[in-house]
Amino acid sequence: MRRSEAPPAPKDERLPLEPRIKLWVEKDGRLVLSDYRVRLLRNIAETGSLAEAAQRLGLSYRRAWGKVREMERNLGLELVHSEVGGAGGGSSRLTPQGERLVALYGRFRRAVERDLGKEFHEFFQR
Amino acid sequence: MRRSEAPPAPKDERLPLEPRIKLWVEKDGRLVLSDYRVRLLRNIAETGSLAEAAQRLGLSYRRAWGKVREMERNLGLELVHSEVGGAGGGSSRLTPQGERLVALYGRFRRAVERDLGKEFHEFFQR
Repeated sequence: MRRSEAPPAPKDERLPLEPRIKLWVEKDGRLVLSDYRVRLLRNIAETGSLAEAAQRLGLSYRRAWGKVREMERNLGLELVHSEVGGAGGGSSRLTPQGERLVALYGRFRRAVERDLGKEFHEFFQR
Repeated sequence: MRRSEAPPAPKDERLPLEPRIKLWVEKDGRLVLSDYRVRLLRNIAETGSLAEAAQRLGLSYRRAWGKVREMERNLGLELVHSEVGGAGGGSSRLTPQGERLVALYGRFRRAVERDLGKEFHEFFQR
């Protein structure tokens, strides 16, 4: 504002701009999937343990468990199957539905990022 | 978790899910455009007054002015031209660059929303 002394930018100037998004999925207005939540599920799949997945993400076990329960409740699907007890203190794994959602979300996210870059180029960088 | 008594969902179940995004544009890691910022610019264009635009968005004049200055500084472009004084207390209007960015962002946003819906359908609702 009031910088009329600045020379006008050339019309074809290409600003080094970058589009960014935050992506999530709602069901009935409730958050059910997000990068963060899907990362939690992925870590459960990788470690076979909710405790280890929580630790990797710097969450308390209780909080991680609450997130999974919340997702399951909001989706109306079982995503994680846990077996309690044994010498190792139990284990957790994704259900087939959980695996499917994690895979779908990952592909969806990559497709959205790809489209985003394409549209941005179309509108801002041609 | 541990809801093995629940019946498995049918494979072709279509969840009433909805994708959501928050969109913004950065330059050198700094936020330069967002829905909120572009709404401020649009309101300046509509009212011809930064004070009125600020009021419409529930912002103080000072805060609205700061947002505009911040965008201009981060983009290195003049977006709003203000004329001080006169009986009406001055007026503000978008520069041609400001108008162009507002129009581009609006079209970009609509394209991203359209793509988002398409990809979501592709991955989650087929």
